[in-house]
Amino acid sequence: MKILIIGAAGMIGMRLAKSITKDAFMGRINDITLFDVIPPKIESNKSSYKIKTGDISDPKIISDLISQKPDIIYNLAAIVSGEAEENFQKGWDINTKATWQLLEEIRKEFVASNGSYKPKFIYTSSLAVFSGPYPDAINDDFSPNPETSYGAQKLVGEILISEYSRKGYLDGIALRLPTIVVRPGKPNKAASSFYSSIIREPLNGFEAILPVPEDLCHWFASPQSAVGFLKHAAKLDFKKLGNKRSLNLPGVSCSIADQILALEGIAGTKVSKLIKRIPDKKIENIVKNWPQNFIADRAIQLGFSADKNFKEIIKLYIDEEINT
Amino acid sequence: MKILIIGAAGMIGMRLAKSITKDAFMGRINDITLFDVIPPKIESNKSSYKIKTGDISDPKIISDLISQKPDIIYNLAAIVSGEAEENFQKGWDINTKATWQLLEEIRKEFVASNGSYKPKFIYTSSLAVFSGPYPDAINDDFSPNPETSYGAQKLVGEILISEYSRKGYLDGIALRLPTIVVRPGKPNKAASSFYSSIIREPLNGFEAILPVPEDLCHWFASPQSAVGFLKHAAKLDFKKLGNKRSLNLPGVSCSIADQILALEGIAGTKVSKLIKRIPDKKIENIVKNWPQNFIADRAIQLGFSADKNFKEIIKLYIDEEINT
Repeated sequence: MKILIIGAAGMIGMRLAKSITKDAFMGRINDITLFDVIPPKIESNKSSYKIKTGDISDPKIISDLISQKPDIIYNLAAIVSGEAEENFQKGWDINTKATWQLLEEIRKEFVASNGSYKPKFIYTSSLAVFSGPYPDAINDDFSPNPETSYGAQKLVGEILISEYSRKGYLDGIALRLPTIVVRPGKPNKAASSFYSSIIREPLNGFEAILPVPEDLCHWFASPQSAVGFLKHAAKLDFKKLGNKRSLNLPGVSCSIADQILALEGIAGTKVSKLIKRIPDKKIENIVKNWPQNFIADRAIQLGFSADKNFKEIIKLYIDEEINT
Repeated sequence: MKILIIGAAGMIGMRLAKSITKDAFMGRINDITLFDVIPPKIESNKSSYKIKTGDISDPKIISDLISQKPDIIYNLAAIVSGEAEENFQKGWDINTKATWQLLEEIRKEFVASNGSYKPKFIYTSSLAVFSGPYPDAINDDFSPNPETSYGAQKLVGEILISEYSRKGYLDGIALRLPTIVVRPGKPNKAASSFYSSIIREPLNGFEAILPVPEDLCHWFASPQSAVGFLKHAAKLDFKKLGNKRSLNLPGVSCSIADQILALEGIAGTKVSKLIKRIPDKKIENIVKNWPQNFIADRAIQLGFSADKNFKEIIKLYIDEEINT
């Protein structure tokens, strides 16, 4: 079995790559290709992978990747929300056109092989496909209506994946990931960045800034759950998806007050006191329009499982990033 | 004011073109350009129009059309559902890529003009963006989930139009038209064709075939209403649309039994007896998955108005196609 991970240098891509070699869950794997614009920083077991770099918006690169006929293709490559909003062209090129070109190239190989080549195509989508007003909890029937370029780009990708799947050219799924916390590393300029930093910085003895009111709720999963979702998708019988190829994934709905309480419960008030409240209306105006809660019945029925609560999410971060 | 109608040789495009010259509703019109792959058959007032022909999937053609800086652009060009399902590439090229290229060309002109060029972009979308299971009546929040290439192509067009509008490059609207009946002319190979022919053929003294059970309901509007929708969109204050640029339009929900009853009420049983029931499971299986009824509150609040009932739809056909 051949696996291709596009966007393998990212935080989730690297974890997925490492975890696939460890596991035998997909039977015999002959070939794992890691692709990204920069080489993934994988030190151990480097010989387990083929590493390729390039620009995924280049059709020749895509043709080369698909000509290897991977059985499972993870497309995790993305321009993140802030950059997609700033750089319209780049966002559409990477988040949508490159995805479309991948699907087209797969279709060509499908046709050329008389239908014997029909890979699984696993795509990370986002809560950004949604916008308010929201119900108390978003169910599987809630209609997407993106209010960012990133959300629109991901939603078009989803529709294309459904359509290519319906026509039988491939077996696709679009996983709408919760916001992933606690991200290791440094804060970035994403509006969601503080959701990780209010946990990560205090645990590491540093101050963190909380720019929004504590009663705001949001929908979270750990990096470990994200990798779990991606691995589960590879094992899933796609017939069960029918014609609905986009899936809201399970997660933890949690207010910021609850997050802080969970942090205190684990590390004490000395740590949680490192969170400084410095309101930022610009960030608040973005964040308050994000989904707060989901009822992800369909994904749960399909066997996707998330973290139990926010404490568990924090503990996973401590175990993996601090205690190792 | 300059108006461009893309797809002007079609049944709706021609009616729209004729009706725009008659009306003064949009103030002074300097220029109406009619574009299609074949020249529209417009005999009277031919000098009122500039007629252009070409392939709308050709970026050069698009660049030429938009370089004229039309104030209102109607994009009615489409590969219809049956053909889009058969010819995957052609459907995506015309129904989506050409629309995207139009939006891109408008964006270029917007940027080059420092935002002074910002046209209205009026796009005909379709009920085909939806699939079952349906509620008793589909409201404005019902989530699209296309089960045909045509529906997927139109939905991607809708998302692009919303996104380019949100970014301020143009003012777009996507009108989800009901099934248009009674179409003049001959039956075609569309699955929906019988909906016109069971009225049209008997009124003209010919037999018509009804391939599906009489209890099936569907959502209809007359060609006159369709033109009315398109003209109303040109006058509409697009600020009222906010970030929801796709609109389910009002129509008449009607079972086939009701259609036949309406025909009888107007033309008598001698005419309605020309309808022959010849079941066709293939057509039934397509048609039974179509939406049956809508609550088009939003469109009605925005001033879009439809036919009162099916009798009125039949009378419009008689007035225009038989009594003239």
